Amino acid sequence: MTSTIPQSPVEQDVDNRIINPGSIQINVTGAFIVDEELYEDEESIPETNDIVLPYQNTENISHIAIDIGGSLAKIVYFTSNQSVNNSTEDLGPLINKKINCINGNGNNGNNNGNGNSNNNGYGINGNVRNDSISSDDSNDEILDPNRGGILNFYKIETEKIDEFIQFIAKLIKFYNKKVHIMATGGGSFKFYDRLRDELNVQVSKEDEMECLIVGLDFLITEIPDEVFLYTEQNPMQFVNHTKKDIYPYLLVNIGSGVSMVKVTGPNHDDFIRVGGSSLGGGTLWGLLSLITNANSYDEMLSSAAQGDNTSVDMLVGDIYGTEYNKIGLKSSAIASSFGKVFKKKHSKSTKTNKSTFKNEDISRSLLYAISNNIGQIAYLQAKIHDIQHIYFGGSYIRGHPQTMNTLSYAINFWSQGNKKAYFLRHEGYLGALGAFIKRQPEGWGRKNSIKLDELNLSKIRETLHQENINEQSACE
Amino acid sequence: MTSTIPQSPVEQDVDNRIINPGSIQINVTGAFIVDEELYEDEESIPETNDIVLPYQNTENISHIAIDIGGSLAKIVYFTSNQSVNNSTEDLGPLINKKINCINGNGNNGNNNGNGNSNNNGYGINGNVRNDSISSDDSNDEILDPNRGGILNFYKIETEKIDEFIQFIAKLIKFYNKKVHIMATGGGSFKFYDRLRDELNVQVSKEDEMECLIVGLDFLITEIPDEVFLYTEQNPMQFVNHTKKDIYPYLLVNIGSGVSMVKVTGPNHDDFIRVGGSSLGGGTLWGLLSLITNANSYDEMLSSAAQGDNTSVDMLVGDIYGTEYNKIGLKSSAIASSFGKVFKKKHSKSTKTNKSTFKNEDISRSLLYAISNNIGQIAYLQAKIHDIQHIYFGGSYIRGHPQTMNTLSYAINFWSQGNKKAYFLRHEGYLGALGAFIKRQPEGWGRKNSIKLDELNLSKIRETLHQENINEQSACE
Repeated sequence: MTSTIPQSPVEQDVDNRIINPGSIQINVTGAFIVDEELYEDEESIPETNDIVLPYQNTENISHIAIDIGGSLAKIVYFTSNQSVNNSTEDLGPLINKKINCINGNGNNGNNNGNGNSNNNGYGINGNVRNDSISSDDSNDEILDPNRGGILNFYKIETEKIDEFIQFIAKLIKFYNKKVHIMATGGGSFKFYDRLRDELNVQVSKEDEMECLIVGLDFLITEIPDEVFLYTEQNPMQFVNHTKKDIYPYLLVNIGSGVSMVKVTGPNHDDFIRVGGSSLGGGTLWGLLSLITNANSYDEMLSSAAQGDNTSVDMLVGDIYGTEYNKIGLKSSAIASSFGKVFKKKHSKSTKTNKSTFKNEDISRSLLYAISNNIGQIAYLQAKIHDIQHIYFGGSYIRGHPQTMNTLSYAINFWSQGNKKAYFLRHEGYLGALGAFIKRQPEGWGRKNSIKLDELNLSKIRETLHQENINEQSACE
Repeated sequence: MTSTIPQSPVEQDVDNRIINPGSIQINVTGAFIVDEELYEDEESIPETNDIVLPYQNTENISHIAIDIGGSLAKIVYFTSNQSVNNSTEDLGPLINKKINCINGNGNNGNNNGNGNSNNNGYGINGNVRNDSISSDDSNDEILDPNRGGILNFYKIETEKIDEFIQFIAKLIKFYNKKVHIMATGGGSFKFYDRLRDELNVQVSKEDEMECLIVGLDFLITEIPDEVFLYTEQNPMQFVNHTKKDIYPYLLVNIGSGVSMVKVTGPNHDDFIRVGGSSLGGGTLWGLLSLITNANSYDEMLSSAAQGDNTSVDMLVGDIYGTEYNKIGLKSSAIASSFGKVFKKKHSKSTKTNKSTFKNEDISRSLLYAISNNIGQIAYLQAKIHDIQHIYFGGSYIRGHPQTMNTLSYAINFWSQGNKKAYFLRHEGYLGALGAFIKRQPEGWGRKNSIKLDELNLSKIRETLHQENINEQSACE
């Protein structure tokens, strides 16, 4: 569980000395996810929500983390108030984000910023302060610009590896100091030489599965409002899990393909890859790009949202004319994905061309087929390993309602409600985040992140102020 | 196990009184599958091998069985020597088969007929005798034309239901007596009224799952050279299972969709449908007909046989540049089915049209993807239910080597050799055969089918002759 009251530096120091699960050492005191509403304008909203780490000591940030998968290359990097302030680099749209979240109004119940910003933003990068300075800024003395910053998330197609490397080069220039790259995913092996030589940096190759669970463990236990259950009625019902009650869990990571990892405890070797599937995001993406005219994955997902799968799928009712009572198959159950296609295509009454079928319907059917399939295999693995909690990660889901609904439904249907499907707001960055956290710069701690709706800013300020006094006392 | 020596009528009578598993009552004494080589000419070779029932009492055959699935309608019917001899009907190619199998040369080791036929063919339909009469026919007295015949198998697309009903009508005319229809599969419910009214016959609707296992149980335990293991080295390694050692088993029936049924014993309620999948034959058929120009399922399979999936599938090696040692994934393992397509299609160096990919490669990839997927789910279900024997049925496989190899490989890989994948020569007819057998005309028994290479014809003739004498003695 999270706490609203940050720890004292002494308590943090004790925490820092604890060897944390997966070797995670990051100061998440007061950490929270920045909601879309809190960005000043639409253009500055990132594809993946930033995570603010208001207490993170910025001096120690000297690494970035990448996860190069089969289809997507992901990067996680920290931008501190200090670094952004000091930089004269043109950082591009990725770092020039504008946030007004910590503006003294972050404490309202509905998480809406009111548009008035001030420069007390611990954890907010310099641009925010520069762009949205407030005249009412009585707490300047406790808003240390050397403290706090943002975890940024960005991804690009792996085939654009040149652009990706250029982006890292720019980032290194921005940091203006020696940077270490933590690299995971298959591409970190494949492109290792290029990364090291072209960027002239040290690159650590980190095991993919280990990074996935380190990243997931961090998100589950340390970032509030990260993990949620999905239902059509309540698409984002947040749950807060603690280390005490999460193990064992099954991570189902859906990228180009699917990996399923059973995690039994917090130690770095408490996991095993129990299985996987070659039917994943790459399959959806690949098949739909062969059949439809969609040019991007998101275009396919949005097309699927408009479709009706029953025009291509063969339902139990299409075969039986009714439901198959004896074994409990409803007439609306999908008996055969794409089972109607051949029949219709070769029917004398219709033209034998592809236009018989709508791209939207095809997209929806394939999305259902693959999601259902992953859900079923995940359930079976969870059943075999007696696991109740199933976390879905990877860049396949992208907050797409039909996908989450299908996965949730599959787990619920097969387990008769005994197992739960959990989703994540940073689902695509488990590996990159894990790689980021695995680097242990001195002074990184953890604990006591906060939920945004618990963000009682005046209380935090008070605590920060008190800490400053304590620190001064300790130095005297 | 099977026996080479048929039982005496007295022994058979005892057997007939036993209530058999799944209520099977059929005289399989001396039954065998007719190999392709034993047909007189290529044209007369049926798509599915006939089963000869040389001892079946023909007087009691008054039913045919159908199984109408989502994509295919199957029929099983018995043609006796007597019925074929007496008929003047034009029966079409289906019944005009010509066999020279029981020609005194059936006993050779390689199952090749020598082309010399005689009319001793118990179990061979009339046309055979008429067309291939032998001058050397010294055993006429024991070749009772009222005895024996052939189980015939035929299928047609369900969308051609009119043709199917016409075929049944012709068959009924051929029988020239009151015929009962045993109907299973979803279509037996959907088309029940049409069948009953247009054919003016009684139709019994039989439960699909029950029929599947009755049919499978019959094939496994009563028909020699029916069940086989597949390896590339030995594509058809026959196994003979007995009732004692087959339970529990998992039936994986792959039609348009997939059903998985756990069978725990020989009684009619010793089974439960444990799961299924919507990714089956209909999916392969449907997606490939959207993407490729194939006009039939068999065309797709033959196209797949020529293809190279690695041009569209993303392998572990494509991502890692090498294998992923830590979790034992070989570089040749498929990480993402169709994972290369989007990348290649949108690559600047290639044209963005479908012709970038060969239909053969696409077919092979999809065949692999779906077969692997079914294999994995089957393994997981077998693992959960602690089952070692997995039988694959349904019209998806069609004796296609890549399909069987993939299914076999998947079961072997996931179970680390602890579970076995079994295939069947009459895989597509489990339901129809089950429905056929469930009808219990008086006098149908079972037991003592024979393997074709054990067919010591002279011995059988001797036994038959002795039986005749015994029967005469019994009547005196």
